[in-house]
Amino acid sequence: MSTRELPSLPQAAGPLSRADIEQIVREIVVARLVPPGRPRPPTLVVQASSRHCHLSREDLDALFGPGYELKVLRPLYQEGNFAAEETVTIIGPRSRLISNLRILGPLRKQSQVELAFTDAISLGLELPIRLSGNIAGTPGAFLMGPRGLLELKEGVIRAAPHVHMGPADAAYYRVKQGDMMKLRVGGDAGMTFDRIQVRIDPTSKLNVHLDTDEANACGLHMAKEIELLK
Amino acid sequence: MSTRELPSLPQAAGPLSRADIEQIVREIVVARLVPPGRPRPPTLVVQASSRHCHLSREDLDALFGPGYELKVLRPLYQEGNFAAEETVTIIGPRSRLISNLRILGPLRKQSQVELAFTDAISLGLELPIRLSGNIAGTPGAFLMGPRGLLELKEGVIRAAPHVHMGPADAAYYRVKQGDMMKLRVGGDAGMTFDRIQVRIDPTSKLNVHLDTDEANACGLHMAKEIELLK
Repeated sequence: MSTRELPSLPQAAGPLSRADIEQIVREIVVARLVPPGRPRPPTLVVQASSRHCHLSREDLDALFGPGYELKVLRPLYQEGNFAAEETVTIIGPRSRLISNLRILGPLRKQSQVELAFTDAISLGLELPIRLSGNIAGTPGAFLMGPRGLLELKEGVIRAAPHVHMGPADAAYYRVKQGDMMKLRVGGDAGMTFDRIQVRIDPTSKLNVHLDTDEANACGLHMAKEIELLK
Repeated sequence: MSTRELPSLPQAAGPLSRADIEQIVREIVVARLVPPGRPRPPTLVVQASSRHCHLSREDLDALFGPGYELKVLRPLYQEGNFAAEETVTIIGPRSRLISNLRILGPLRKQSQVELAFTDAISLGLELPIRLSGNIAGTPGAFLMGPRGLLELKEGVIRAAPHVHMGPADAAYYRVKQGDMMKLRVGGDAGMTFDRIQVRIDPTSKLNVHLDTDEANACGLHMAKEIELLK
């Protein structure tokens, strides 16, 4: 894990630990240059989410035992979210598996697994690209925990690239819920993500989530220049 | 592996096999719309190169025995190049390894290993992004073959995204050796590669090489729209 901050810009990373390479692994804090006559831009945090899962109460019970409570390994950048100490094993249709799949808390209504395409290929799954929560008709898989195995009928997705923001950020960028923005990343492997979907919530901090394929493709860990554009 | 061709456009894939998922895995044949008054655009083939290595005569001898000759598994899109039946194992600094690393022929003056960042992370290597052949000062690794183990002092890179083309293609796009072009890929994970380096050679067919991270990040295997731009 690496945290990169341009020296003269506001700090924003907060309590992120460097210890767990299985989790959100790279982070860059950048602010855009301020165009004349516009307010100072909000601090932008771009993160790569490694593969992970969210679990329902029922599925956590099945995997870890009735009434089990997740232990916080470390808080995530978005308030109230955390990486749990617990992991599960995901088993795909060709009897291939990925172990140490991190659980992110808190619990949700529906279980969901988020993988990069590289992970999906190694498991033998064809994944659709979906926003978190929109899992109808997506592939399933088996999950294995210390107290049980369960079949997830659906819920394995590649997360669509997206940006979390609060209403003030949305006003700054002049975007609304569901709009598409662009994220330009400079460097030797410079690229522009053309479809970063806007998700506005009053509790959200400005934060782009990429998956590990996307972060590796653009060399996020060594990017010196990054820009969120309408 | 999948080969996608728009129905009314010229065919270009040639003899590429669908059999080997460890090799160049996805291919899309697309032609740009013809602007009025311009000649018909050349056929563009975009391919994802899985991790692979090129070997020198001396290193092939060390790994497979003196005078060993590579066997052709299948020809690659660029004339004279081929995927060999033979593979090696690469061992990184943390005693982690990747087996079945495909050898591409013909032999070269210097051995070189091309990995995606995802591979490099799993091996524990920090890779620079380099054009093929430009390996001075890059990390090394151990290679293991059926007849021996050798230490590659340098030569492990992430290949810079590039486009091979002949002089006629260069004239069409109005680019010269070393210029940077853009590759726009549409779709749910649409993105634009901003630095596709131009490599012109009289024997080359128009052909963009991405690595598996890049191909997976942009969803190349399901892209319906792709465009090479100056």
